[in-house]
Amino acid sequence: MPGHRASLDHPVDPARIISAAAARGWRIATAESLTGGAVVARLVDVPGASAVVAGGAACYSHEAKSRVLGVDAGMLARTGAVTGEVAVAMAQGALRLYDADLVVSTTGVAGPGADERGVAEGTVHLSLAQRGAEAESRELRLSGGRARIRALTVEAALAMLDEALAD
Amino acid sequence: MPGHRASLDHPVDPARIISAAAARGWRIATAESLTGGAVVARLVDVPGASAVVAGGAACYSHEAKSRVLGVDAGMLARTGAVTGEVAVAMAQGALRLYDADLVVSTTGVAGPGADERGVAEGTVHLSLAQRGAEAESRELRLSGGRARIRALTVEAALAMLDEALAD
Repeated sequence: MPGHRASLDHPVDPARIISAAAARGWRIATAESLTGGAVVARLVDVPGASAVVAGGAACYSHEAKSRVLGVDAGMLARTGAVTGEVAVAMAQGALRLYDADLVVSTTGVAGPGADERGVAEGTVHLSLAQRGAEAESRELRLSGGRARIRALTVEAALAMLDEALAD
Repeated sequence: MPGHRASLDHPVDPARIISAAAARGWRIATAESLTGGAVVARLVDVPGASAVVAGGAACYSHEAKSRVLGVDAGMLARTGAVTGEVAVAMAQGALRLYDADLVVSTTGVAGPGADERGVAEGTVHLSLAQRGAEAESRELRLSGGRARIRALTVEAALAMLDEALAD
């Protein structure tokens, strides 16, 4: 199953995502915490991306996740932001915000070190939400420091889009 | 006046922006069209960015600029998205959306080629909006192809934040 393991050696080609989404007439958006816009930035690297990429909401703080993406503030206060439920809520929020067909979201601890709740560096949750379908989430345990954790998360997010469009 | 000319040889250090904003207790956000999240991604590269960076809204399509950032749809239809007025409206929209203190926005034509209205490749408008102050905009004429135009726009946006915080 290509794409299930994030790899920096075999990066996902964002042009394949753009052309597959264009063929379906789908609009893509992102909701990004630890990757902070790097996923949508990879997508818009592709010439012609404007036909497909609605945009992306980088929401770093709890408040931004709640204000911008509508993630329940009580849930964030109870569980913190690094859970599959938060990833799903972020993705669903971006579907609504951008009126998109397909969204990938990222939330996790890039480090250095664990977060203020003790969630380990490298813990990452991603979610894929599709208009009119159930959202799915995926958890990764990454290592190698802040830059590598973020880069691998970007690859994993692109791989989720790629798989959803390859079905 | 350092920062007024975007340069890839002397990139702005995002850590300086983060520490200056932290010292003031300010929250930063971005509103990005042609850079598509690359400005906020540079900011969150800095460890500790979460104390300062609320997030960023990458809004590539007219519809996303209008839905997400509240840019007037009639203005977009009349003038297209590559104007100083749109850059200002995007920045002001992100100030509200993220409840931020300082926002930089980008809109422009990365190419290849002119946009559908004939606006030349490399035409870029940026705006800096600060809570409780007038927004300013700046126009750039860049060259060298899509990747270079986007990279120079990222540098120019970071330079505007840097200057605003150096005052």
